[in-house]
Amino acid sequence: MPEIRHDPLLDRWVIIAPERAKRPQEMPPAEPTAQAQPCPFCEGNEKETPPELWARRDGRGAGPDSPGWTVRVVPNRFPALTTSSPVRHEHTGLLKSIQGVGAHEVIIESPGHEDGLADLPPSHLQSVLEAYRLRLRAAYQDSRLAYALVFKNHKGPAGASLYHPHSQLIATPVIPQNVRLKLETALKHNARTGTCLLCSLLHQERTSGTRVILEADGFIALAPFASRFPYEVMIAPVRHMPDFTDMRNEDLLGLAGMLKDILQRLKMALDDPPYNYFLSTAPNPAALEQEEWDAAHLKSAGHWHLEILPRQRPPAGFEWGSGFHINPGIPEDAAQHLREIGTKRGE
Amino acid sequence: MPEIRHDPLLDRWVIIAPERAKRPQEMPPAEPTAQAQPCPFCEGNEKETPPELWARRDGRGAGPDSPGWTVRVVPNRFPALTTSSPVRHEHTGLLKSIQGVGAHEVIIESPGHEDGLADLPPSHLQSVLEAYRLRLRAAYQDSRLAYALVFKNHKGPAGASLYHPHSQLIATPVIPQNVRLKLETALKHNARTGTCLLCSLLHQERTSGTRVILEADGFIALAPFASRFPYEVMIAPVRHMPDFTDMRNEDLLGLAGMLKDILQRLKMALDDPPYNYFLSTAPNPAALEQEEWDAAHLKSAGHWHLEILPRQRPPAGFEWGSGFHINPGIPEDAAQHLREIGTKRGE
Repeated sequence: MPEIRHDPLLDRWVIIAPERAKRPQEMPPAEPTAQAQPCPFCEGNEKETPPELWARRDGRGAGPDSPGWTVRVVPNRFPALTTSSPVRHEHTGLLKSIQGVGAHEVIIESPGHEDGLADLPPSHLQSVLEAYRLRLRAAYQDSRLAYALVFKNHKGPAGASLYHPHSQLIATPVIPQNVRLKLETALKHNARTGTCLLCSLLHQERTSGTRVILEADGFIALAPFASRFPYEVMIAPVRHMPDFTDMRNEDLLGLAGMLKDILQRLKMALDDPPYNYFLSTAPNPAALEQEEWDAAHLKSAGHWHLEILPRQRPPAGFEWGSGFHINPGIPEDAAQHLREIGTKRGE
Repeated sequence: MPEIRHDPLLDRWVIIAPERAKRPQEMPPAEPTAQAQPCPFCEGNEKETPPELWARRDGRGAGPDSPGWTVRVVPNRFPALTTSSPVRHEHTGLLKSIQGVGAHEVIIESPGHEDGLADLPPSHLQSVLEAYRLRLRAAYQDSRLAYALVFKNHKGPAGASLYHPHSQLIATPVIPQNVRLKLETALKHNARTGTCLLCSLLHQERTSGTRVILEADGFIALAPFASRFPYEVMIAPVRHMPDFTDMRNEDLLGLAGMLKDILQRLKMALDDPPYNYFLSTAPNPAALEQEEWDAAHLKSAGHWHLEILPRQRPPAGFEWGSGFHINPGIPEDAAQHLREIGTKRGE
């Protein structure tokens, strides 16, 4: 059974999940292959996954776990965490752990094995984003789950083990370290200035313009000032919005258009690079007490955003030891290049 | 020129180093090769590196930058940071940066292209550790440098770009996030209990024994309770010792023996895996003021240690987004396996 262990030296958590060692190794980092036989995520192979949690069918198909879907959500067959067990905290001397509880789901982005997000129509990406919104809401129905992270691994060097386009959601009973750091930083800024840190930052970036890649439909894409990786991109709503699950359908369509556009530009600029993306959004209100955070304060301080990290080189000892990243690329140059790709396409 | 940028959302730093993009790509992650022509780190090719900062010669050879050395330290030719410029802090709205200053050195571990640390005699590893000690001391002569991290990247998937065995040292004008978190956690524990956190943890681990791999010559190797990676190993002195640079020569020989032994066991257990290691030690006393830390307090709370991270899978979106690691291996099983390898060798 998976277990969440506390690292007493760094005051952070690690998931120990031996089940994960059994997952198929279709795509080891060194030799990506395009074919798994049979691919459990392809249309027609629905019986190869656990029963679906949600799917968009638009009136087609014969019902759950059969063909006819456009986006489909299933539990991960090799979960890092499972929801089936009660939370059990253990404590031996300096060592703390939490047994079991958590969610791990797979969002299968399209029925076709080769249909990458960059090449699907915006309306299809909208359904993927709708799945994110629905599954985040579902996770937060469970008051044991403090935070749910939606993320995507594209290609082996970015940690993908299956080729078929998919995202994942992992929900944990503690707020993860990076999420906590971000929220604490935002809360401190808010307490000091009365403003939202990301709203202020976006205002400054839009005024300067050098790192802005694109702005449309109420969303902005930019190369962060302190990008950890070359061609890192952040997408955020221009107006203050703490919680991704508050997005309306028309907002999702605007975001879908921007996400597709940015993924296409990255694909052109870097020859379809491996990448990760992940969504930073509000924690489960049920979990605020454990952090002594105030819901109203968090609503003025938090602002959801999506980070896209192209992964052309593995992190090394310096990164692990320091938490510092060395980025050989200049964010302003990346922003300019990605802007120009838009121009070349005749925009 | 390299620049250190502050990430306002996570309150941490990133090094933007465009010079690094020019370094040779002998060893891309996917296709490691054993030959570079000519390898700048091989004996006889001393002119291919910047002038050496230190070398162990034992009376052989014709002087600096010529053959006859066993361990050699040179400035990195493609530095992430350089010491040549004055510290210049910049600040525009929410965005902060520090221009330039820092050190980046390469510790060439042996004159031979194929002589890996696991296979060299302990006396040779002792010279490598002596180089670490000397270069850490030299870095801390510069009061602009707050922390120096010694680390090693073994093989392409662990971030190595050259095959010839080498370690590196990077010194930064700010204390890196992970180092700060560790020291803060240790200081908090010390303020609460009056004890050193790592001393207490080692006591608990030695009593339980399930995660101990080896203990000898005053050093202990164990599989950390919350290991981030399968077969992660920590080596530390059993008795309280805050600063690696206080190690005496006979201590270095004991540590060299243990390091060689552990690297050999990992090589046998995992078929010569890619790995990173790095040293956590005391910051530059000259930098304590910027953190409002007390030197005496830090001396009772800090305890140097070396972490070895085998790197069989790349980190993925969940790790980047959460700071949480998912480890498919059980630390107690890894400890047992690594203990048994010692027994099989007839110990």
